[in-house]
Amino acid sequence: MKILTAIDSMKGSLSSIEANQIIADIFTKEGHQVQQVAIADGGEGTVDAVVKNNNGQKIAAHVQALDGKKIIAHFGWFETEKLAVIESAAASGIQFLNGTVRTHPKNTSSYGTGQLILAAIDHGAQTIIIGLGGTGTVDGGIGLLNALGIEFYDKDQQKLSAKGSNLANIHSFSKKRLDPRIAKINFQIAADVKSPLTGATGAVKMFGQQKGISQSELTDYELAMKYYQRLVIKEEHSVPGDGAAGGLGFAIRTFLHGTSRSGFEFISEQTDLENLIQQVDLVVTGEGKMDKQSLQGKVPVGIGRIAKKYGVPVIAFAGTFSGDETQFQEEGISVIIPIIDQITTLEEAMNGARENLRRASKRTIRLVTLFN
Amino acid sequence: MKILTAIDSMKGSLSSIEANQIIADIFTKEGHQVQQVAIADGGEGTVDAVVKNNNGQKIAAHVQALDGKKIIAHFGWFETEKLAVIESAAASGIQFLNGTVRTHPKNTSSYGTGQLILAAIDHGAQTIIIGLGGTGTVDGGIGLLNALGIEFYDKDQQKLSAKGSNLANIHSFSKKRLDPRIAKINFQIAADVKSPLTGATGAVKMFGQQKGISQSELTDYELAMKYYQRLVIKEEHSVPGDGAAGGLGFAIRTFLHGTSRSGFEFISEQTDLENLIQQVDLVVTGEGKMDKQSLQGKVPVGIGRIAKKYGVPVIAFAGTFSGDETQFQEEGISVIIPIIDQITTLEEAMNGARENLRRASKRTIRLVTLFN
Repeated sequence: MKILTAIDSMKGSLSSIEANQIIADIFTKEGHQVQQVAIADGGEGTVDAVVKNNNGQKIAAHVQALDGKKIIAHFGWFETEKLAVIESAAASGIQFLNGTVRTHPKNTSSYGTGQLILAAIDHGAQTIIIGLGGTGTVDGGIGLLNALGIEFYDKDQQKLSAKGSNLANIHSFSKKRLDPRIAKINFQIAADVKSPLTGATGAVKMFGQQKGISQSELTDYELAMKYYQRLVIKEEHSVPGDGAAGGLGFAIRTFLHGTSRSGFEFISEQTDLENLIQQVDLVVTGEGKMDKQSLQGKVPVGIGRIAKKYGVPVIAFAGTFSGDETQFQEEGISVIIPIIDQITTLEEAMNGARENLRRASKRTIRLVTLFN
Repeated sequence: MKILTAIDSMKGSLSSIEANQIIADIFTKEGHQVQQVAIADGGEGTVDAVVKNNNGQKIAAHVQALDGKKIIAHFGWFETEKLAVIESAAASGIQFLNGTVRTHPKNTSSYGTGQLILAAIDHGAQTIIIGLGGTGTVDGGIGLLNALGIEFYDKDQQKLSAKGSNLANIHSFSKKRLDPRIAKINFQIAADVKSPLTGATGAVKMFGQQKGISQSELTDYELAMKYYQRLVIKEEHSVPGDGAAGGLGFAIRTFLHGTSRSGFEFISEQTDLENLIQQVDLVVTGEGKMDKQSLQGKVPVGIGRIAKKYGVPVIAFAGTFSGDETQFQEEGISVIIPIIDQITTLEEAMNGARENLRRASKRTIRLVTLFN
């Protein structure tokens, strides 16, 4: 049987690449022909996924982590298309947070993500896709912009360092030193976060606390972000996605004229997923947590909808599942298979995800081919 | 598709009849033709299972529970064969224990099970199958024998009441008043317990404590049982199965010349299971706990072995599963499907067994027929 596996990551347990590989290993052993498509949502793992899917290269660059430390980060490179794929998590990711003042959002910057853009341009990029998600910064993107040459000044015309705490101090900014090559680059955003820059579901109030902003700091931080927003776009209106990656969405949209797509749309186009699906007998997908929210068009349902058009059955593995199966069936997902099979705690289930998925894959392929 | 479901009970959660019905309901709804075979091990539910499998009747009789209380118990009746099926748990079952002195094994008796035998004979029985298992008595079967007319005397030739504590006091017994009809009855034992009457794995030491014999009483109780054994068979040699149901196995074998079979063999014969299996496309079985022990020939493996002969695939639902799947595959069980599908405690899993089995059945039948 020809099988396509395109399973989303199981957050905290398995990357999409790892989960696909587990399934592919089992199915291949049972004599099937398996093609893998790695899924990404713009966050950590996005570069790995696109590089794996389309045989890209990973190019290293010296950049600053969100706290200023020098690190080596990578972007994905596709020579033929002169396409670079950057993930903001690489330099500005939440993995750099350590609970100290040094990594508090007030003191951190997305500068390193801007450096990755410059490195990609140096490498010859004409199109740059920036995956947003999993960042530890809440700087409205001024760090990124600053790395590209945009300067921010206080009310005394003094240059400001581009970090979270200075959002409230920006009196003006200048594009004079903006790298001239930027104007010729086609910027695209890949993100699954639909938050606006400000407000209750925005970059500060929705995601600030998990990055280290304390409850008592939220109000002032939100005011600063609103102030910055008005300064840039002369209004408080903010677009869904602006709040992704601590405001990088906003900066890339307004300063770099980036256009936005969901992570899944991006992967789907990049791999010509619709064409791949037509060529197989069975599609396998899934994600860590399948529930009502999944029906809003996350990966499995996105895949189910395509497969349904071509009458290709879809099965979905789920770390946990709750909800009404028939709604998923209408979206083209024939069977949802929870991978848990033992008395277990959440922690055990997450630690055991690899083994659970392996066993679930085995059971599943045997049942599907019971009469073959 | 023609499907046979013959799943064992999930102890503490679902009877075999209930579990079969859940599976049958789901599969029927999906358009399949389902036949059910209820499984029994000689313990509680045996009468219900055989009556359901072969359209028998349930006949009520007034008898004594193990503590002497009057109750109504039932035996199964098959008119054509003049066959009665009795389960010792009906009158002498562990469900009557309440932790008081009154239900301590020293003070209880299998008398009621003997009364059920008499009621069956009154009803015209020529063959009586006695299911052993789930009893609360440890009386070596003297209660049952006493009900049939056998009398036990102490060293002063005084009649003894037939209860556990009098095992040590029996000096002689008489068959003079034994119901003369007994000699013409074909007695068969259906039991899965292979314990001998005495010794470390016997009726006292292995099962005594769960029936209320305290640790400190065990040695004396075991001595009494050994004394009784020697009195009856003039030796200490005891046969596997003698220890079933607190020694009822021993009493039925030695006094009533009962022959013994496993619960599964009995059901298998009664339903002509081998013939049924040949007529279906798929067999469904399972049990509460599948593990290494299951390979010793419990229900699923028994069914797997038959199905393997005829190339009929078998799937098994398990409340919990541990062990090596390939060993089960060699025994004809193609896939084992744990029914747990959520983060769960043992208690939740047991309470949720009905719903878990329902969902597992749904997933399974959809996977099996994904390409139909």
